[in-house]
Amino acid sequence: MKIKRVSESVSIKRSIESGTQEQLLQVKAIIEEVRIRGDEAVREFTEKYDDSYLELFSVTQTEFDEAFEVIEENMVDVIKEAAENIHSYHMKQLRPSWMTTEENGTILGQKITPLDSVGVYVPGGTAAYPSSVLMNVIPAKVAGVERIVMVSPPGENGKIPPAVLVAAKVAGVKEIYKIGGAQAIAALAYGTEQVRPVDKVVGPGNIYVALAKKEVFGDIDIDMIAGPSEIVILADQTARPNEVAADLLSQAEHDERASSVLVTPSQELAEAVAEEVKRQLIELPRKKIAEKSIQDYGVIYVTESMDEAISIVNELAPEHLEILTENPMEYLGQIKHAGAIFLGRFSSEPVGDYFAGTNHVLPTNGTARFSSPLNVEDFQKKSSVIYYSEKALNQNVHKIAAFARLEGLEAHARAVEERFK
Amino acid sequence: MKIKRVSESVSIKRSIESGTQEQLLQVKAIIEEVRIRGDEAVREFTEKYDDSYLELFSVTQTEFDEAFEVIEENMVDVIKEAAENIHSYHMKQLRPSWMTTEENGTILGQKITPLDSVGVYVPGGTAAYPSSVLMNVIPAKVAGVERIVMVSPPGENGKIPPAVLVAAKVAGVKEIYKIGGAQAIAALAYGTEQVRPVDKVVGPGNIYVALAKKEVFGDIDIDMIAGPSEIVILADQTARPNEVAADLLSQAEHDERASSVLVTPSQELAEAVAEEVKRQLIELPRKKIAEKSIQDYGVIYVTESMDEAISIVNELAPEHLEILTENPMEYLGQIKHAGAIFLGRFSSEPVGDYFAGTNHVLPTNGTARFSSPLNVEDFQKKSSVIYYSEKALNQNVHKIAAFARLEGLEAHARAVEERFK
Repeated sequence: MKIKRVSESVSIKRSIESGTQEQLLQVKAIIEEVRIRGDEAVREFTEKYDDSYLELFSVTQTEFDEAFEVIEENMVDVIKEAAENIHSYHMKQLRPSWMTTEENGTILGQKITPLDSVGVYVPGGTAAYPSSVLMNVIPAKVAGVERIVMVSPPGENGKIPPAVLVAAKVAGVKEIYKIGGAQAIAALAYGTEQVRPVDKVVGPGNIYVALAKKEVFGDIDIDMIAGPSEIVILADQTARPNEVAADLLSQAEHDERASSVLVTPSQELAEAVAEEVKRQLIELPRKKIAEKSIQDYGVIYVTESMDEAISIVNELAPEHLEILTENPMEYLGQIKHAGAIFLGRFSSEPVGDYFAGTNHVLPTNGTARFSSPLNVEDFQKKSSVIYYSEKALNQNVHKIAAFARLEGLEAHARAVEERFK
Repeated sequence: MKIKRVSESVSIKRSIESGTQEQLLQVKAIIEEVRIRGDEAVREFTEKYDDSYLELFSVTQTEFDEAFEVIEENMVDVIKEAAENIHSYHMKQLRPSWMTTEENGTILGQKITPLDSVGVYVPGGTAAYPSSVLMNVIPAKVAGVERIVMVSPPGENGKIPPAVLVAAKVAGVKEIYKIGGAQAIAALAYGTEQVRPVDKVVGPGNIYVALAKKEVFGDIDIDMIAGPSEIVILADQTARPNEVAADLLSQAEHDERASSVLVTPSQELAEAVAEEVKRQLIELPRKKIAEKSIQDYGVIYVTESMDEAISIVNELAPEHLEILTENPMEYLGQIKHAGAIFLGRFSSEPVGDYFAGTNHVLPTNGTARFSSPLNVEDFQKKSSVIYYSEKALNQNVHKIAAFARLEGLEAHARAVEERFK
């Protein structure tokens, strides 16, 4: 792992896939076909890209039953407990509608309502993570979304992996279709005979899914397009090199383009972690991926001071931040930009990935400067509420009319004045 | 104004300008130039498109002073009072960071922080609305954004309109540049010698501005791209035709592409409103615009019942909804999708446009199904906070490791197990 003095330049090397012009045209064509020909087109694309011919897309009760036979009961219990923790954390994000009243009769308020329907995309193959099913579905449930639809491409056996089905069931999803790719996004956005359209699609996917989401955006809402995963660890000399290395590697194993960064004022720690990373790498099943990721996107920054280290963290605005210092709480107030902040050595990142209850869908690529973890409000929207009494309007009608006329909007002025004619 | 029975088809006819391929290429080229050549490029484009050669872009103290000399004191007071109302409403949207603690030592939380910096775009010409300055700036201020930058193209006299400068001053903006178009968006996104970059740009603009915002999105955040303004009025036979017509016209005068819709079970009201619209139109200074808007995008739907009328409103998901019925509060609970809801005859839409305190930047084009009025949270972001004690991790380490292994992520499992080696 490269060790750099800070002066050299501070940035997370990030790899964003934006798709080729050819891929974009392909995606546009798929969406167009699905809009025109509905299920027939979805069926053809599913056969072409996922090697499955499906008359009906819906997951059957038998498939659910089979899934619960495959996954061990203990494991189902773990998934349930994780789901409960996620539910409990996200319940805290719920807010009521509110209103204010004034003596002159004015009532102003903010009405909060859930989206009617949401689609959750779950990628196929090795990227079909049951934990992500929980993380995407449960906030929508808590928000009060009535209809949650899941889509996922059928695997080689024409089915969705059992762990994903179990997680979907635990999270309370009832409507699941074995469709994927741009055709699934198009079906969710515009509807087909079998799939009624939804108001928003969330969940990660490959480049075709990402491009399709961008295409339908505006007609429906989408979540952020996630980049490769990142971790930044802020540590002092009290951190244990083996633990720091293990956490860096847990990020690196995700993806060759994942980035793992250590920022520390301790040269000694930096060197020890670099050694440990080498040592632990050897024994990892996903060694190849992790090694490439560490090589291309791994870096250790050694700073002059803790203050400098913190300012680097804020510049990087990481998706995951671990603070492994003697007293991590001390620095929480200084962290301005980070998707999730893990405090202390027993709060290793996988605690949040799977279990604590916070969401693991987090802003990547430095977008923590302006974006938030997936949360309940991503599945709700607000309406302003305005009630003016006769008295309230009477008190203010001339001001409102004057402001409208200042902007040259005479009909606006006349609309309020019309009430007192 | 066309009167339709509902069965005919219910939709707001909407006109979305998405820009030509040529405009997009032009915008891309402008952005590229500004990224490479900074101020020099901005200066050239300002000369080319806004007919002003400016060495320094910043608005001077003299220009502020002049603005306050031009705008009447009474009018400044109205702007100030509106600003106070907007401030007061948006303060209610503020929420604290929170945390939960458990006996085993677990602490979970949500830390809320403002964005560091925000840019507010204010269009030039007749679309330079001081009210929009207040609506875009004040929520950012309330959110705690430290640096708020305003940009607006210089007018024919090389200056920004006085009312806009007064509103900016009242809202507390200190940094204003006389630049506009795609070059201003590029400067805000990537920075130049005179303009430091920001994290997010909000505010309406012409098609070049909209395309530029889409282009820089991802590198920085943007607000929604607004379409033409819309109003839907839900009314029963107690509504007064002259008031309904006045409110429809206040929308129609905005833009030839604005849409004004009345939904009512009363055929009598429908006919009376159509008459009134004709009558009031004649005397409007912006008659041409309003007439074209009413002709192309105005419609009255007559329904069988109030229930049917409400379900149409929810289908339309309007930007502005007025409820002009005998007891408007009665229907508030049934409204699912609307940007802002105006209740009763003294809550004419301009009340919200200028004065009540709610935001007038609202979701258009039916996006009220999934979007909200501009609000304080658009200028903040959340970070999850996770603290696990040794005891908490010890209780759960096997579950977390099991979940990680279910997903084939061995290094995740080892990271948590490493703590107990």
